[in-house]
Amino acid sequence: MATKKAAVIMGSDSDFPTVSKAIQKFKELDIPFEVHVMSAHRTPEAAASFARGAKDAGFGVILAAAGMAAHLAGVLAAGTTLPVIGIPISSANLGGLESLLSTVQMPSGIPVATVAINGAQNAAILAAEILALSDEKLAAKLEQAKIDMAEGVAKKDAAIQEKVREL
Amino acid sequence: MATKKAAVIMGSDSDFPTVSKAIQKFKELDIPFEVHVMSAHRTPEAAASFARGAKDAGFGVILAAAGMAAHLAGVLAAGTTLPVIGIPISSANLGGLESLLSTVQMPSGIPVATVAINGAQNAAILAAEILALSDEKLAAKLEQAKIDMAEGVAKKDAAIQEKVREL
Amino acid sequence: MATKKAAVIMGSDSDFPTVSKAIQKFKELDIPFEVHVMSAHRTPEAAASFARGAKDAGFGVILAAAGMAAHLAGVLAAGTTLPVIGIPISSANLGGLESLLSTVQMPSGIPVATVAINGAQNAAILAAEILALSDEKLAAKLEQAKIDMAEGVAKKDAAIQEKVREL
Amino acid sequence: MATKKAAVIMGSDSDFPTVSKAIQKFKELDIPFEVHVMSAHRTPEAAASFARGAKDAGFGVILAAAGMAAHLAGVLAAGTTLPVIGIPISSANLGGLESLLSTVQMPSGIPVATVAINGAQNAAILAAEILALSDEKLAAKLEQAKIDMAEGVAKKDAAIQEKVREL
Amino acid sequence: MATKKAAVIMGSDSDFPTVSKAIQKFKELDIPFEVHVMSAHRTPEAAASFARGAKDAGFGVILAAAGMAAHLAGVLAAGTTLPVIGIPISSANLGGLESLLSTVQMPSGIPVATVAINGAQNAAILAAEILALSDEKLAAKLEQAKIDMAEGVAKKDAAIQEKVREL
Amino acid sequence: MATKKAAVIMGSDSDFPTVSKAIQKFKELDIPFEVHVMSAHRTPEAAASFARGAKDAGFGVILAAAGMAAHLAGVLAAGTTLPVIGIPISSANLGGLESLLSTVQMPSGIPVATVAINGAQNAAILAAEILALSDEKLAAKLEQAKIDMAEGVAKKDAAIQEKVREL
Amino acid sequence: MATKKAAVIMGSDSDFPTVSKAIQKFKELDIPFEVHVMSAHRTPEAAASFARGAKDAGFGVILAAAGMAAHLAGVLAAGTTLPVIGIPISSANLGGLESLLSTVQMPSGIPVATVAINGAQNAAILAAEILALSDEKLAAKLEQAKIDMAEGVAKKDAAIQEKVREL
Amino acid sequence: MATKKAAVIMGSDSDFPTVSKAIQKFKELDIPFEVHVMSAHRTPEAAASFARGAKDAGFGVILAAAGMAAHLAGVLAAGTTLPVIGIPISSANLGGLESLLSTVQMPSGIPVATVAINGAQNAAILAAEILALSDEKLAAKLEQAKIDMAEGVAKKDAAIQEKVREL
Repeated sequence: MATKKAAVIMGSDSDFPTVSKAIQKFKELDIPFEVHVMSAHRTPEAAASFARGAKDAGFGVILAAAGMAAHLAGVLAAGTTLPVIGIPISSANLGGLESLLSTVQMPSGIPVATVAINGAQNAAILAAEILALSDEKLAAKLEQAKIDMAEGVAKKDAAIQEKVREL
Repeated sequence: MATKKAAVIMGSDSDFPTVSKAIQKFKELDIPFEVHVMSAHRTPEAAASFARGAKDAGFGVILAAAGMAAHLAGVLAAGTTLPVIGIPISSANLGGLESLLSTVQMPSGIPVATVAINGAQNAAILAAEILALSDEKLAAKLEQAKIDMAEGVAKKDAAIQEKVREL
Repeated sequence: MATKKAAVIMGSDSDFPTVSKAIQKFKELDIPFEVHVMSAHRTPEAAASFARGAKDAGFGVILAAAGMAAHLAGVLAAGTTLPVIGIPISSANLGGLESLLSTVQMPSGIPVATVAINGAQNAAILAAEILALSDEKLAAKLEQAKIDMAEGVAKKDAAIQEKVREL
Repeated sequence: MATKKAAVIMGSDSDFPTVSKAIQKFKELDIPFEVHVMSAHRTPEAAASFARGAKDAGFGVILAAAGMAAHLAGVLAAGTTLPVIGIPISSANLGGLESLLSTVQMPSGIPVATVAINGAQNAAILAAEILALSDEKLAAKLEQAKIDMAEGVAKKDAAIQEKVREL
Repeated sequence: MATKKAAVIMGSDSDFPTVSKAIQKFKELDIPFEVHVMSAHRTPEAAASFARGAKDAGFGVILAAAGMAAHLAGVLAAGTTLPVIGIPISSANLGGLESLLSTVQMPSGIPVATVAINGAQNAAILAAEILALSDEKLAAKLEQAKIDMAEGVAKKDAAIQEKVREL
Repeated sequence: MATKKAAVIMGSDSDFPTVSKAIQKFKELDIPFEVHVMSAHRTPEAAASFARGAKDAGFGVILAAAGMAAHLAGVLAAGTTLPVIGIPISSANLGGLESLLSTVQMPSGIPVATVAINGAQNAAILAAEILALSDEKLAAKLEQAKIDMAEGVAKKDAAIQEKVREL
Repeated sequence: MATKKAAVIMGSDSDFPTVSKAIQKFKELDIPFEVHVMSAHRTPEAAASFARGAKDAGFGVILAAAGMAAHLAGVLAAGTTLPVIGIPISSANLGGLESLLSTVQMPSGIPVATVAINGAQNAAILAAEILALSDEKLAAKLEQAKIDMAEGVAKKDAAIQEKVREL
Repeated sequence: MATKKAAVIMGSDSDFPTVSKAIQKFKELDIPFEVHVMSAHRTPEAAASFARGAKDAGFGVILAAAGMAAHLAGVLAAGTTLPVIGIPISSANLGGLESLLSTVQMPSGIPVATVAINGAQNAAILAAEILALSDEKLAAKLEQAKIDMAEGVAKKDAAIQEKVREL
């Protein structure tokens, strides 16, 4: 069974700097992906059409990044039974609180798997965890990343002793 | 020129008790209207199709009531250049704050005219103000309603004197 | 029937940089407009008088921009049956959350059509949608703008593929 | 010099149960007062006219109670140089947070002395403190009330020992 | 390949009435599941041990429901590379806003797929969407449920016309 | 009767840049004043002692500026029957929301007249309005300031026409 | 060394039902305690005097429960170097968010150890943990309570299996 | 009896600049301490193991600093009966409000003594107050610090008079 692709959809190309962390993670984990700018409000038909066809197009999971009254993840989730991961983008005036609530507070029947504000990297890891359920090689990479992460903290713990002495 | 119709769209029939205040106002003002249950998430195609055809179907303004991650007004606004009025419905846990933010914080290009949480009556009056721009008879009714409202307050002012004495 | 004018009222001239996006949109769409600095608190009589006379002066819609305890839109709406669009201006300490709530949470009888914090451009588009109900030429421009906007997103989608490769 | 009167203005007669605590306090302290229902939005001219004439009518302080997008206190303050005390009334969906912010976050030049949500009794005490600056008899009553209040707490401290034993 | 199981972990048995909606959905969809009461704070070792062993025990996805400073989903996610779905439980004083933020605002490296406050049913559907990636029969059930849901809305739309006439 | 003095108390000398706007207003209006740094937490006895003696020391009103868990205004109000005006100072992390709530949400019996976050100028104007009740000369200055303020807005209205043309 | 006493201070006797959970915990753990009603605002001198004398009176820790603009914990902490534990009491309109912020956001130099809104039981356990540092018998009781708590969860886990079957 | 040590645990070494204020205070007060980077999510076993062994390792109090969905303090408190002091670290998008709520809103049985957002210095002082219960020398230093702090304010009060004259 060929690995399913991840889709990374952003509502505006101004979200790219944040979203790029998800893309880098997919590259790092050798997960095939496609990236698109599509808007629930400006290109509603393109977005709806993408969602309806995503499964047949070989996607296994969809990441949707949007800010303010962030409808993108919900609109995509409305059109597919693939898991949709919502990335609320921080906003200029309310810090992204409205992006978060617009993404996570979905009504019954249409879930969006929401991560932290600007949490693109975690969205990619979550997508990887989902795809790894039927991809043992990917699962092994995630296990290794967890071990590396723990070792990274241990190294920082050692390094901080120096800083403490210098205070 | 025949008066344009108002559309009243609610995301769930559980919103009806709140939305009925808008309907009653339309009846009171003799504004033709249609009411529909349509969901941005459960019937996205019906909602999109309604929005795209609304102008040609004789509508002049669309009211959209939804709660939580309220995407309905935005999704309708994406499909039409008619003015869309958003009514955020109060929610069980956050009081409707998320409904309000999901409705009002729209990105540039796709406005939603948002009223207060559960503000269905005001949504209908706003719709009437919009339709009255080309309907002098409706305009006169709105002027009269404003006068009646002021007189109502004056009567309450008189009545409250009695309550004050009884304290 | 001559096109009705739009009024753009701001509570303080410090709101001009934000409000100018509405003015530019009116220029772009050839909508006649007037701009005024008027304050619900500093020039209450001028504001009330403007609202009462707005319809007879040929206005069809009023935009009101104000920050903090933003009373301007509500005070104007109290004096007219024209649709009033409220633009909450972001504030130094609470990000404009109080401007938004002060503008949108209007009591029954006096609606204010509220847009996003600093959403001046959307306020102008909403005004255009309202005026377009009796101005087919303006309606056509709005339809075209929607098409252009969708095409703009499609171009950005194409452009982003390059950025993705460069990551 | 005759004692100046206090005005108690409420935006809606539904605010009366809350506002009545201010009225009772004025009765208790023998402060002359008048009570009115007046709305910044429904009777803007009556409200503006009251504010402009309040000083000459013998008022020394104005209490204004309103909820949601509470503009009443600000609108009254716009029309007078008398101190205006704002009482934010709790609201159905946001608990009165918007009433508080709409009342207190006034722009420079037009202060509103804001008390707690539903803090009508404190509004009356604050009014009394203001009027007491030129009324030594009233000042003495306020001093005595402070002493009584402290004694009340001391009695409750004694009484609670019994409850503790019963636990 | 045998279908992987879903785990439903709740921090307190008082969460059961909310969580039961997820369990009913799993029964309805014939998804094998286990239910446990485990606390990040009261039984930290049991929770950590469960997370570490979940994959080998045949689980494919973990649902974690907790309220207030909801650490359960994060603590489970720390111990596994399986996808963890967080269900923030509403709280007595802050409506569950703190449960939501404690669940969703995870640091980089450890994602939690968060659904709405009390969104247990959506958590189960999201889990089903994840498991359906390698279970076509389950995928078909989800597709059918989406169709049924749309038909349900269409029926409600028809039914509401009656209510509108009765107003 | 000699004019009563205003006290300006700040919880920390870092509040001075904000508080200085109140002091300048007092200088401008020829209101006698004293300025002190006193802390509810660091110098509780000095603060309590100042409050108890304020009336006899010739003060008529007390301004108290503090940030975060702002207890200063409440602590001063506990010790005097003079009107106490609270100025919530903006804070680094929550924008001063906590300063505002800590100042305004006073329990029954101990009012604090609260102005906007960082609203030092308005605090001074409110103090002036209070003192003007028994000082006709000061009252006249306040009336004149209101007229000047309105004229200032009218000038800005004229000036903005130029900016609009330049867009 | 005799065990130090715990003080339980509440700002109002209406806080007793919440605070009683702390008292019961002290009884259960055989920690000597005193309970008092004292108010930062109504009996400021009693509160200040209690704080200054608390250490010499044999207290080792002070619990302070108050709601709204909750100044009690901060005022007590200002007068002592004993650890002060703040219990924010839920409020009618804002759920206790203001009580929490007024208690926890203390300026540098005067810490208050804050627990959850209405978290009286946890306040008592925290006090016990502090006193247990020099009381091995108390420490053993706390260890045992932790074991009992874990066993309680394990029993609930067993019991819930029955409920699941019944769904 | 040898003085017990304080532990300073941070979830990420990026928290060091904030946490260093606690360390400096411990140095200043001659309190023995250890500093570690440990994460509830990245090194859960190290964190749990540290908590379980902390008492036997000679610690008397644990400080835990973490941001966003800050689980560190709660996870440590789950594993020990030593008092745990939580320092919520400010976050990029929500100012640390979520860090505060994730730290303070702990369920019954597992208290975390929470200080202000970024309140590392106060966390150290609170720890010192706890350790001082069985260390009279440390208690004396804290008493002296309180006196110094009051004198510091008095000096600032004197100094501000100069600034006032210069306005």
